[in-house]
Amino acid sequence: MNAYKARREKLAASLAQRGIAMAVIEDTEGRRNPSIRYLSGHPSDALLFITSDARSLLVPWDVNMAAKMASVDQTAPYTDFGRSPFNAVEGALKRLDIPKGSVIDLPSSTPYPLYIKYVETSPDYDFVCQEESCKETVVNMRAVKDQAELELYRRVSAITDQVMDAIEAQVRSGAFKTESDVALFIEKELRAKGCERTGFDTIAAGPSRSFGIHAFPSYTGAAFGSDGMSILDFGLVLDGYTSDVTMTFVRGKLEGKRAQMVALVQKAYDEAVAMCAPGVKSRDIALHVETVFAKNDYTMPHGLGHGVGLEAHEMPSVNTRETNTWVLAPGHIITIEPGLYDPALGGVRLENDVLITEKGHEVLTHSRIVQL
Amino acid sequence: MNAYKARREKLAASLAQRGIAMAVIEDTEGRRNPSIRYLSGHPSDALLFITSDARSLLVPWDVNMAAKMASVDQTAPYTDFGRSPFNAVEGALKRLDIPKGSVIDLPSSTPYPLYIKYVETSPDYDFVCQEESCKETVVNMRAVKDQAELELYRRVSAITDQVMDAIEAQVRSGAFKTESDVALFIEKELRAKGCERTGFDTIAAGPSRSFGIHAFPSYTGAAFGSDGMSILDFGLVLDGYTSDVTMTFVRGKLEGKRAQMVALVQKAYDEAVAMCAPGVKSRDIALHVETVFAKNDYTMPHGLGHGVGLEAHEMPSVNTRETNTWVLAPGHIITIEPGLYDPALGGVRLENDVLITEKGHEVLTHSRIVQL
Repeated sequence: MNAYKARREKLAASLAQRGIAMAVIEDTEGRRNPSIRYLSGHPSDALLFITSDARSLLVPWDVNMAAKMASVDQTAPYTDFGRSPFNAVEGALKRLDIPKGSVIDLPSSTPYPLYIKYVETSPDYDFVCQEESCKETVVNMRAVKDQAELELYRRVSAITDQVMDAIEAQVRSGAFKTESDVALFIEKELRAKGCERTGFDTIAAGPSRSFGIHAFPSYTGAAFGSDGMSILDFGLVLDGYTSDVTMTFVRGKLEGKRAQMVALVQKAYDEAVAMCAPGVKSRDIALHVETVFAKNDYTMPHGLGHGVGLEAHEMPSVNTRETNTWVLAPGHIITIEPGLYDPALGGVRLENDVLITEKGHEVLTHSRIVQL
Repeated sequence: MNAYKARREKLAASLAQRGIAMAVIEDTEGRRNPSIRYLSGHPSDALLFITSDARSLLVPWDVNMAAKMASVDQTAPYTDFGRSPFNAVEGALKRLDIPKGSVIDLPSSTPYPLYIKYVETSPDYDFVCQEESCKETVVNMRAVKDQAELELYRRVSAITDQVMDAIEAQVRSGAFKTESDVALFIEKELRAKGCERTGFDTIAAGPSRSFGIHAFPSYTGAAFGSDGMSILDFGLVLDGYTSDVTMTFVRGKLEGKRAQMVALVQKAYDEAVAMCAPGVKSRDIALHVETVFAKNDYTMPHGLGHGVGLEAHEMPSVNTRETNTWVLAPGHIITIEPGLYDPALGGVRLENDVLITEKGHEVLTHSRIVQL
């Protein structure tokens, strides 16, 4: 049995248990959801219907792509339904013989006005759209990586490490002078090494721009690795799965507040990674880092980390929000990325990907703060 | 008065007319909306509140970035509201002194479960969330470009033409051999010419992959410009605004069905562009192209075109859907991009950006089908 079918059967079991006859999974412009890929192999732009007895119907925008990449029971082109999601759902209910009166789960991301239209188009069914929809069920399934996914993460982490080593060497040698030099090297190298794309827009922010959490534009012709602090935040995607690392390059004598910022970020990072283990609440790790910074009158303007996988940001959460009740478990892969920013002095951030294991954790990538 | 303020005043007038006290505009992961940039200059990740008397409050994730880029009346950091959109809306209602009982417009993209939470958090207000929300009001404002925007489009179109000329020369000379060669050249050139990024993932699909509407991955180490048909679809972003063009490169003797596909796409393109003028329904242009293809037993698996601007796909619509009631007007900028695809023979697509003028149209970019 292939991995996609196994995942669909797991989801179907959850549907059956909750009295849901059919789940709707959607990936479209404005509402991207790589769970379509997770469950079918089809990379994007489709509706996927899964029944409580594990039958599946894929409605892709591009049937040629589906023929090459999808592994599902049935496929029907979106044009069969006039490219209308409401008609596609109506058609799926018929083709999959779903009895009238059944409960149909819509993704939690369904906009309020579209929810109303689904109900109007197929009035004989009981549509539910809740914060904990089947979309979240799959997101939670994706949080725990299986063996095939762990194998991919070892490969993409090794490639990411190689690229970081090459970048450090060329920033040190002076071969890379600008943000673009670094970012375009990554674009070229990742493809040469068999990756498909970056996991998100590479952020290469030299000393003039590293004060921002997300530099904008993400890279420019500005100097990188020159006097001050430069941040490089990037991820490489292998077969859909992304790494996510951040290096900081510091050039010049490290003193005063800047030295304090660098030391605090390194300390926060070390202590946070040391806490990573099964049974630990990710919120407690984030609260610990907040305390480390607060004792020195610093505040981190973003979360401590996040899960990674088919998306750059996925479950489990790793932040201080009260709603974050995640308990780390074997198979979770999270980033730990403390950072501090000062409009005048620039920013420093250190980020690696950490796998939670039965015994504790394994740091998969090996980024660092580089003193030039 | 700056452009942002002028746009907010136009939106506010629409709010006042419709009895809406405050509009909520949101740009966040999963629900991107560059209207925040259009209305405030702030590029991303924020909530923006605009009242019917044109007062504005920006709640950015990154206050440092807002201090540099935003032009609004008031700014309050997201952390003031515990990084909760529900609390931020509640806080905005207080800070902007919105009377209880007032109508508050939520974006049409608001998921059903979040709509419920807004209502629960601020029960004293009348929240509306409709298909035609203020989000659409701004989208419709954005469809008609003002003078500043037209000036930008002339510049980004000229840069796009230069990059296409350089690519054609280097594909002809054999300097570019792979999809990556072409795509990375674009990444490098655009920054050298002052653009900020590509408008979307560049699609460079050599003969082995051009059969797909959206090749996946978008570019690889595969051959480009070799025997058969290669498609290159890319856009360059200048100050937020993207161009969008597609070139097809054909190498080898053009005969049989492949020759027919190329000729039909060129004919469909020429006739569609000729129809572009104010007062013309964009749907009629798309229906005409459908007829051209249908007479020869071909079907185009995607829409004929779309508006471009701060997003690669925006209003006006240019497709055959019955819901497309757009009438072209001066200031609209649309793509015309007929294409045909065959799993065995590959694909051909030709796309340029067309400005609707008082007298008819002006083709802004100059892509073409290149016979090698």
